[in-house]
Amino acid sequence: MAQSGSFHAIVPAGGSGTRLWPLSRAGRPKFLLPLPGPRTMIQETVNRLLPLCDARNLLVLTGSAHAAEVRRQIPELRAEQVIVEPMPRGSGPAIGLGVAIAAKRDPDAIVGSFAADHIVTEPERFNAAVQAAIETARQGYLVTIGIQPSYPETGYGYICAGGVLAQHNDLIVSRVEEFKEKPDVTTATRYVESGEYLWNASMFVWQARTLLEEMQRHLPGLATSIETIAAAWDTPEREQILAQIWPTIQDVTIDHGILEKSDRVAVVPGDFGWTDLGDWHGFGTVASDDPLANVAINAELLASDVQGAVVMGNGRLVALLGLRDIVVVDTDDALLICDRSRTQEVRGFVETLKRRGSTDLI
Amino acid sequence: MAQSGSFHAIVPAGGSGTRLWPLSRAGRPKFLLPLPGPRTMIQETVNRLLPLCDARNLLVLTGSAHAAEVRRQIPELRAEQVIVEPMPRGSGPAIGLGVAIAAKRDPDAIVGSFAADHIVTEPERFNAAVQAAIETARQGYLVTIGIQPSYPETGYGYICAGGVLAQHNDLIVSRVEEFKEKPDVTTATRYVESGEYLWNASMFVWQARTLLEEMQRHLPGLATSIETIAAAWDTPEREQILAQIWPTIQDVTIDHGILEKSDRVAVVPGDFGWTDLGDWHGFGTVASDDPLANVAINAELLASDVQGAVVMGNGRLVALLGLRDIVVVDTDDALLICDRSRTQEVRGFVETLKRRGSTDLI
Repeated sequence: MAQSGSFHAIVPAGGSGTRLWPLSRAGRPKFLLPLPGPRTMIQETVNRLLPLCDARNLLVLTGSAHAAEVRRQIPELRAEQVIVEPMPRGSGPAIGLGVAIAAKRDPDAIVGSFAADHIVTEPERFNAAVQAAIETARQGYLVTIGIQPSYPETGYGYICAGGVLAQHNDLIVSRVEEFKEKPDVTTATRYVESGEYLWNASMFVWQARTLLEEMQRHLPGLATSIETIAAAWDTPEREQILAQIWPTIQDVTIDHGILEKSDRVAVVPGDFGWTDLGDWHGFGTVASDDPLANVAINAELLASDVQGAVVMGNGRLVALLGLRDIVVVDTDDALLICDRSRTQEVRGFVETLKRRGSTDLI
Repeated sequence: MAQSGSFHAIVPAGGSGTRLWPLSRAGRPKFLLPLPGPRTMIQETVNRLLPLCDARNLLVLTGSAHAAEVRRQIPELRAEQVIVEPMPRGSGPAIGLGVAIAAKRDPDAIVGSFAADHIVTEPERFNAAVQAAIETARQGYLVTIGIQPSYPETGYGYICAGGVLAQHNDLIVSRVEEFKEKPDVTTATRYVESGEYLWNASMFVWQARTLLEEMQRHLPGLATSIETIAAAWDTPEREQILAQIWPTIQDVTIDHGILEKSDRVAVVPGDFGWTDLGDWHGFGTVASDDPLANVAINAELLASDVQGAVVMGNGRLVALLGLRDIVVVDTDDALLICDRSRTQEVRGFVETLKRRGSTDLI
């Protein structure tokens, strides 16, 4: 196993998670919450990466509203390890800048990107998938780790796997045939049944050099801007240059801007208990794989003739009587009670409150 | 209309209302709660009686645990107007003492007894029923006001009406044929269909003299004890004599001890929007007679695809999604969520918490 080039990890920490309202709020987004607890999602994400990369090789990408809380939750991070985006510009500039900064520090760096608000229940298998991705990245590929789909989810994009490139233990690495947008349920079912499709979880590994070459090819203007910021990063001009250039750069996702255009993309299949904890039903599934079980976090639960309840408590006693598949989320100023099959619709409350100007509640 | 004898009203204020947990607690029983609000049940009860009787002619019966709060909620009451039972002895001694005290103040007094935790939505019709009862009481009857049953409730006793005694406007006053214990549902259905039965709501009107004569006849020992306490009531020895005699007296209800044995009992039918607000479903029925409406007290309600919800809030936002007939009771330290058809079972939680020794929650 070749050992040239250190492994760096970028942790994009964004997205508010409105389907996890009322626990998640604009000022307290999903990745800063203890889901499922006791540590927060970003703390868990960082802990998951530490066996793979030196703590000094971590970079967290976040917005200015959350930078202070990120630093509070992960006090080990030095100032230069937190990239505070002055405004959102999509994943392309953010991840690109992280990669360019890593490349300045180590030109042979291998860089992975892992969202701060995903859950992995089998870290050993996660490590094995990342190791396989690192090996593949060393061959000059942009590597995605695609998730083995367990059902025809319509909320994710899919990755169609093509020709086999290599095998690492039980992991068969393939070329990516095509990226697919979020499908309808018929299409999703066909994808899952074919066995050729994986969920796109926006999990990437590549040599810094490879990504920067591909960015230069497909987004040359962005590559130049990123390069300018990265050159100033470890100097006193960091903030000034960032503030000057960032507002001028293109808003683009790494998927659309580079991966979907590149012919050097590979996929490693991931089967390590991944979930993005998209809604309260998903939260319940993470907490217990028995759909009849009642799950209660941070609450004393009294339940009489109750099945499938999901309770995210606030330290109070919660007494449930004669209910099926109910979701209860108890916070200081708002209480959500929802049928478990309807948790995707919770974001509608956030929209309603936004229209009403109830900014304290969203 | 004869005008001799003033009208006095006794308000028994007892019972914890465990089916209204977690709002009702041992230390904060139903009659002290703002149900449906904004005034508390005992405040509403007193206000309902003031058009019928002079404020000085009110007597509240309560336990020592609640006397201070009763006085706080009804500051007009003088010390001698609150009978604080040193320990529970049933309604016989308590109401009997109230009647004996009223008789000391006015030997021709007419006395009514009205529980502190019932609701009346049509006070004019209530007044008319009490006036009819007063007229009947002046003829030497022990008068009950029986409630016109609207459905075959199995949680109440029933009164079987017999021969007609008088008519006051649309109210036909009858002799009581028999008092019936709480029936099973078949029997209750037969009662309601016959048109001859009324709910026993423990609402009584009589001349003080008549009741004391009947007590002397059927419970002579109790009558003597009561007479001794009443003689001391408006003297400095009140508390001393009460504390000395009360523990020695018989524990008996006014129904079993006197009314069921007397041949001088009459009934006035009552149809004035009465409910004893026995459980949260009943609370919802009082708040709205549309079973599909969502009812929210003391909460901002966001409801999406919700019908028949009953929310007793605690000032917080309550967001409900995809639910039918749900009851939510939000308090500082406990949250109840319950199917509306199961609200009678709420008392089971109180029993569970009692067994656990969670005295702070019951």
